[in-house]
Amino acid sequence: MVLKDSFPTLVEDGDAILVLDQTRLPREAVILRLTSLEDVVRSIRVMQVRGAPLIGATAAYGVALGLADDADDARLQHVIETLAATRPTAINLHWALARMRRLIQESTLVTRRDVAWNEARAIATEDKAANAAIGQHGLSLIATIHAALGQKMGHPPGLLPGEGGDYFRQAAPAIVNVMTHCNAGRLATVEYGTALAPVYAAHAAGMPVHVWVSETRPRNQGLLTAWELREAGVPHTLIADNAAGLLLMQCKVDLVIVGADRIAANGDTANKVGTYLKALAARAHGVPFYVAAPLSTIDFACPSGAAIPIEERAADELDAGDTPVANPAFDVTPAALISGIVSERGIAQAGELGQWRP
Amino acid sequence: MVLKDSFPTLVEDGDAILVLDQTRLPREAVILRLTSLEDVVRSIRVMQVRGAPLIGATAAYGVALGLADDADDARLQHVIETLAATRPTAINLHWALARMRRLIQESTLVTRRDVAWNEARAIATEDKAANAAIGQHGLSLIATIHAALGQKMGHPPGLLPGEGGDYFRQAAPAIVNVMTHCNAGRLATVEYGTALAPVYAAHAAGMPVHVWVSETRPRNQGLLTAWELREAGVPHTLIADNAAGLLLMQCKVDLVIVGADRIAANGDTANKVGTYLKALAARAHGVPFYVAAPLSTIDFACPSGAAIPIEERAADELDAGDTPVANPAFDVTPAALISGIVSERGIAQAGELGQWRP
Repeated sequence: MVLKDSFPTLVEDGDAILVLDQTRLPREAVILRLTSLEDVVRSIRVMQVRGAPLIGATAAYGVALGLADDADDARLQHVIETLAATRPTAINLHWALARMRRLIQESTLVTRRDVAWNEARAIATEDKAANAAIGQHGLSLIATIHAALGQKMGHPPGLLPGEGGDYFRQAAPAIVNVMTHCNAGRLATVEYGTALAPVYAAHAAGMPVHVWVSETRPRNQGLLTAWELREAGVPHTLIADNAAGLLLMQCKVDLVIVGADRIAANGDTANKVGTYLKALAARAHGVPFYVAAPLSTIDFACPSGAAIPIEERAADELDAGDTPVANPAFDVTPAALISGIVSERGIAQAGELGQWRP
Repeated sequence: MVLKDSFPTLVEDGDAILVLDQTRLPREAVILRLTSLEDVVRSIRVMQVRGAPLIGATAAYGVALGLADDADDARLQHVIETLAATRPTAINLHWALARMRRLIQESTLVTRRDVAWNEARAIATEDKAANAAIGQHGLSLIATIHAALGQKMGHPPGLLPGEGGDYFRQAAPAIVNVMTHCNAGRLATVEYGTALAPVYAAHAAGMPVHVWVSETRPRNQGLLTAWELREAGVPHTLIADNAAGLLLMQCKVDLVIVGADRIAANGDTANKVGTYLKALAARAHGVPFYVAAPLSTIDFACPSGAAIPIEERAADELDAGDTPVANPAFDVTPAALISGIVSERGIAQAGELGQWRP
């Protein structure tokens, strides 16, 4: 089904779910109808469905699609394990599956299938609410930066002091220039986005924002970000990932905000590969670097970034024929480089996530 | 003319020059015959000819192609200005044109056309010699690292201490893992390359080297690097630019070495956009970061990186339709992040280039 207009990332449709095929965006908006466990597994693996929170919610529906009314424990185990094996890094997937397993095993009042549908629906609904809250907490951050920009004089701290070259131009003080990486917008979630939720909230509040969108090789999810920002009417500019350091040096970035695929208990954060380079450059130029993610992205069982598995994806994503390729899909940004983590509970220092431990 | 075998980047052919069309590599090796000033201007502008040293030598031949035997000063001025306007950042272009102008204006013994051909030939010959010398100086650097790797124990300094995750694997001590950016190999020069000259010298000396090749968006010159390394039989692996930080964090890189388009008098270095991010990551993990370039790349009239003009190239290089795009082609790495600069004269600290002032 090819649509022209906007469409949610994930909705129920009778005994099935409808999702946007994100491998075909932004060229065309194609809706997929997923009717089985196998459909969901394939769509997550090939990244038709992507983005840590959306993967979690979709996998929850995958459990529901995989269970008959009288599904036994063996079937439940198989369904959970099959979904868990799709992608290794994003913890939201495993969080959602653990929650589904617990609820289904504990429930005796209704059929397992009904429990699964209800719980998947709850996970999707909670994702929307969490992201809306992230948007509001992040909005206060952007508002603070916006107010500070009005006061800012001269050149922020950086490795190269300004010497009159035009690439040290001050960003127009009225506009908050936000840099992001990959797509942590509405397309990565059930609604609102994580990193982009504060941007949408600021835009809705009439605050002038502009987003630097990184292409995000090798899969170019930056084009998804550009697509959804355009749909929302938010000013944005696409750059090659390589340009991030120069823009920070040129004082053209006021805030870097990214999503996360897994946050370790100590605050080290795995996110799309390339995030770490932006964090290093933000630190070098004194620009705040924030991570926005729902609590379901925090893996309190994971002590630090060193324990996060990094997914290695297929060589052909680089489209370089038979050239030998290494293609890690994520990297780890140490907590020390993170100014704060924005969740539905507020903003915390990366080293102080214990306050949010369930 | 489509070739299967290797071919020089720049050779004379009667009253013309032959160059490799680098926009069609690595798909096919096509030789272009440039017969006029206009041919040379176009080939530099569209990056059929690219790489700072090669641009300089090709532009010198462009002067020769643009002058008749009895060319007057006005014509000489026009030819020089036309070539100078092709690309703003690489100083080798302006260095070569200034040298051509001086020699042509001073000479009275032979025709201006003959002087120009002779001097272009001298520039090309000197480029080969300079790069061969860079290779030998850089070889000593690689040999030192190779010897040290044999001694290295444990985990080098970094932001994240190793905690057992497999992505902190020690690089195999027998192999020197070199990371580069863009293409600063033989394709970027008349011969041997700048950043890759030490790699080729090490390979020729039987020292085990492996090169991490960054894709180098938006124009993917990393594919040129992979192509020429394959031709030379040097082991290599292509990565997305975004993966550089992770590989450094994983201790999989022993040396970063890049070329340069312009080195300011204080050592700040403009090179292909994305270089700065690699320099920041190398510093974060205590990995040496070197710049390799002939003396013609040093602009002693340019006090610091802030004064280097950064070329903005066309939006369509990002192939993103009508999405707003910013596409700076270079960035500036501050001298403080550069372990040393390798020229034909040896290796100097970035802050001590004065010793090489002509």
